[in-house]
Amino acid sequence: MSVLDTLRATVGDAHVREGTDAAPYLTDWRERYRGHALAVVSPASTDEVAAVVRTCATAGVPIVPQGGNTGLCGGATPDDSGRAVVLSLRRMNRIRAIDPYNDTMDVEAGCVLQSVQDAAREAGRLFPLSLGSEGSCTIGGNLATNAGGTQVLRYGTMRELALGLEVVTARGDIWHGLRGLRKDNTGYDLRDLFIGSEGTLGVITAATLRLYPLPVASCTALVALSSIDDAVALLSLARRGLGASLTGFELMAGDCLASVTRAFPAQRLPFEGNAATLPWYVLLELSDSESEAHARERFETVLGDAVANDSARDVVIASSFAQSRALWHLRESIPLAEKAAGKAVKHDISIPVSRMAEFVRDTNEALQHIFPGVRHVIFGHLGDGNLHYNVAPGAGWTDIALLARQEAIFDVVHAHIGRVGGSISAEHGIGQLRRDALAQFKDPIELALMHTIKHALDPHGTMNPGKVLIADS
Amino acid sequence: MSVLDTLRATVGDAHVREGTDAAPYLTDWRERYRGHALAVVSPASTDEVAAVVRTCATAGVPIVPQGGNTGLCGGATPDDSGRAVVLSLRRMNRIRAIDPYNDTMDVEAGCVLQSVQDAAREAGRLFPLSLGSEGSCTIGGNLATNAGGTQVLRYGTMRELALGLEVVTARGDIWHGLRGLRKDNTGYDLRDLFIGSEGTLGVITAATLRLYPLPVASCTALVALSSIDDAVALLSLARRGLGASLTGFELMAGDCLASVTRAFPAQRLPFEGNAATLPWYVLLELSDSESEAHARERFETVLGDAVANDSARDVVIASSFAQSRALWHLRESIPLAEKAAGKAVKHDISIPVSRMAEFVRDTNEALQHIFPGVRHVIFGHLGDGNLHYNVAPGAGWTDIALLARQEAIFDVVHAHIGRVGGSISAEHGIGQLRRDALAQFKDPIELALMHTIKHALDPHGTMNPGKVLIADS
Repeated sequence: MSVLDTLRATVGDAHVREGTDAAPYLTDWRERYRGHALAVVSPASTDEVAAVVRTCATAGVPIVPQGGNTGLCGGATPDDSGRAVVLSLRRMNRIRAIDPYNDTMDVEAGCVLQSVQDAAREAGRLFPLSLGSEGSCTIGGNLATNAGGTQVLRYGTMRELALGLEVVTARGDIWHGLRGLRKDNTGYDLRDLFIGSEGTLGVITAATLRLYPLPVASCTALVALSSIDDAVALLSLARRGLGASLTGFELMAGDCLASVTRAFPAQRLPFEGNAATLPWYVLLELSDSESEAHARERFETVLGDAVANDSARDVVIASSFAQSRALWHLRESIPLAEKAAGKAVKHDISIPVSRMAEFVRDTNEALQHIFPGVRHVIFGHLGDGNLHYNVAPGAGWTDIALLARQEAIFDVVHAHIGRVGGSISAEHGIGQLRRDALAQFKDPIELALMHTIKHALDPHGTMNPGKVLIADS
Repeated sequence: MSVLDTLRATVGDAHVREGTDAAPYLTDWRERYRGHALAVVSPASTDEVAAVVRTCATAGVPIVPQGGNTGLCGGATPDDSGRAVVLSLRRMNRIRAIDPYNDTMDVEAGCVLQSVQDAAREAGRLFPLSLGSEGSCTIGGNLATNAGGTQVLRYGTMRELALGLEVVTARGDIWHGLRGLRKDNTGYDLRDLFIGSEGTLGVITAATLRLYPLPVASCTALVALSSIDDAVALLSLARRGLGASLTGFELMAGDCLASVTRAFPAQRLPFEGNAATLPWYVLLELSDSESEAHARERFETVLGDAVANDSARDVVIASSFAQSRALWHLRESIPLAEKAAGKAVKHDISIPVSRMAEFVRDTNEALQHIFPGVRHVIFGHLGDGNLHYNVAPGAGWTDIALLARQEAIFDVVHAHIGRVGGSISAEHGIGQLRRDALAQFKDPIELALMHTIKHALDPHGTMNPGKVLIADS
């Protein structure tokens, strides 16, 4: 039997796609990458995944695991050789179990994030991972890329939210590692090795996720600031004054909010006069286990201190759920507003918070020196030291002219990241987009260790080849 | 030059110990293991560690890394071949940097935990790891065993408290992985691979630790309960009502507290009548970012609900710092009181919280059936699903008779752990003590993956051989 015949016999004819049926799986969401594949195969169970992997391993056929196909680095798109099989996990979308007293749930890799959030809420619990693509991204992709989002400050990234994994290894064996344990010191941490490995070491088929109590109340505030230094000082003040109730701390450049109100005139900045045109804004979210009134009172105390010591220039505290939503809507509209304004060279970076102001100042300056007129689009999760630091076509630039310089812009930004001990990918991963940059950027010993592990766990190099690491020759 | 001569030239004659000078390093804290070594070598810098490892690797000499030598599983004690070098990290005890705005500090592996806590506090920050041996254990050992302790419920284990590592690999290369970043998705998670690997993959020489704001206030409460089911229900209620302010939730059997008040008559249980003789007690700790008064008020609300719905039989909320300390002192005195009562067969286990009551009931019953008269000594971090489940000599037993049955007792307890999806080592690690049990207990695919990683990162098997994994023949 041919490989395709064996795969059809394993998952059923209807779940092996070729030709135009396969096309949507062969390009990424941003349409920056387009590949070819032998077929797109959609198994319905862990046993079927294992059988598919064994078939491919025996035949030396590369496997590209794919979830909701919402990745931003081309990690789930095959190369153009047409030799690979795309392994779609979307049919594995069962919530296997919820254990409210243990605050855990077992879910399959193909579950859409939002359906996991919903199932947790129905059980009276919170699954805190929250990000823009939650309506279509899957838990498997969230795990493969160690997804972050807007509540990392309090609950951590996907790594902190997964207690156990079920994984099909590169050989096609099944590791039954679903565990609902907060503490387990029995040998090497394989879970964290597979999380964030972007399908290059094996296929995550299910996970035990950590749940939290639903907050009783929440409240949102928007603060106008003169500088990033003031934003860093406000973060320190808010962490001290609000403790773990502080669940979000998002920085936005004034320019970004101006783009939003320009693109979407129904949205308005809730400030008047000088405070409406300041260079920086911070959105804070507070989750409270007492009441709405207590949440607002805590904000009034802490943000009142910030105004009194002059680190905050003006403050708006939402007085209703609708007002909270409107403030978040400003933040969430930035990517769309920027997309409307043209294509940008994007960076998803992380920087020690204490060096954030220095990094933005020096890197902006260097970019203006080499690429005069480019526009700086800066926003992100300051509470986690994570900025989306994008470079957009400004005066004298077209999209095409800017994208032609993408690699040169990457080089400047990455060099500045290196200088302040930062990371070139905070939450999006490496995929194809940052693979060559990673090889330049990483400590050589760390890179060598990564290659050693790749070679040990995937000796024939069939698991998502060409992603994260440059394939050994 | 001989290996010893080279080591002397590297670290200085005074820091290569042999004979009686070496003896304290060759037995573990509980004196259950005693080994021999070529020498005990104490380098003062990362470069010296790397040079020592290279010398040993070239000569095929095994290395046993050691910190404060407070481990409970014999992981830092050499075997009796006398071939190994014990690599003591104690001289590497500098706090390299504190960055309060980034909430991080860089410390060397040999720093004593308490000195790290103190340095953080001086900078106005909290380093939350807290455990019995904190006055002598070192950060390197805490990392090697992924230490837990009494605040895991809120702040996680050592794994969650380390952002970056500096490691000397088995080849003697230095991985410069100190990073103060909350998010960093640039390839495989080597940090979590070395954390918890008990020195079998390389030597951790320094770490970037995560700091938190100091709580403004804290408060302690003791609750008397009729059953473990009630304790589990109280945990759920307290998590919902107190959110992340709940920083400790310790379960103690009534028998354990009776042993404490018997051994240390100055200590007293703060209950009268029936509530003083119940089978279970829970100690709760609340850390607050507002005030002592607010902390007490929160406890009154939530624990009042527990009394009203009958899950709590009686409650004492500390009204002063001294009263809080006295309640904690009861908890902390259990191991000493038990030690005074005789030797026990100890288990450090983790169980899904929802199955805790079932586990304790069934395992107690099975043990009584096979070993009639043994005493059950049960206490631990219920909030993390972590029990110290110990079996002590009761009526008709001597220490010697009990310890002679240790392996048989392990077998019964481990079988019951397996049945409820638990772990045979929650926070103490594997070392020598649980190595053979691990080989029996683990999913075979997981065990095979662990051997693959060990072989890839330590191909000559010189890093702490015979710990965690049975050496490949």
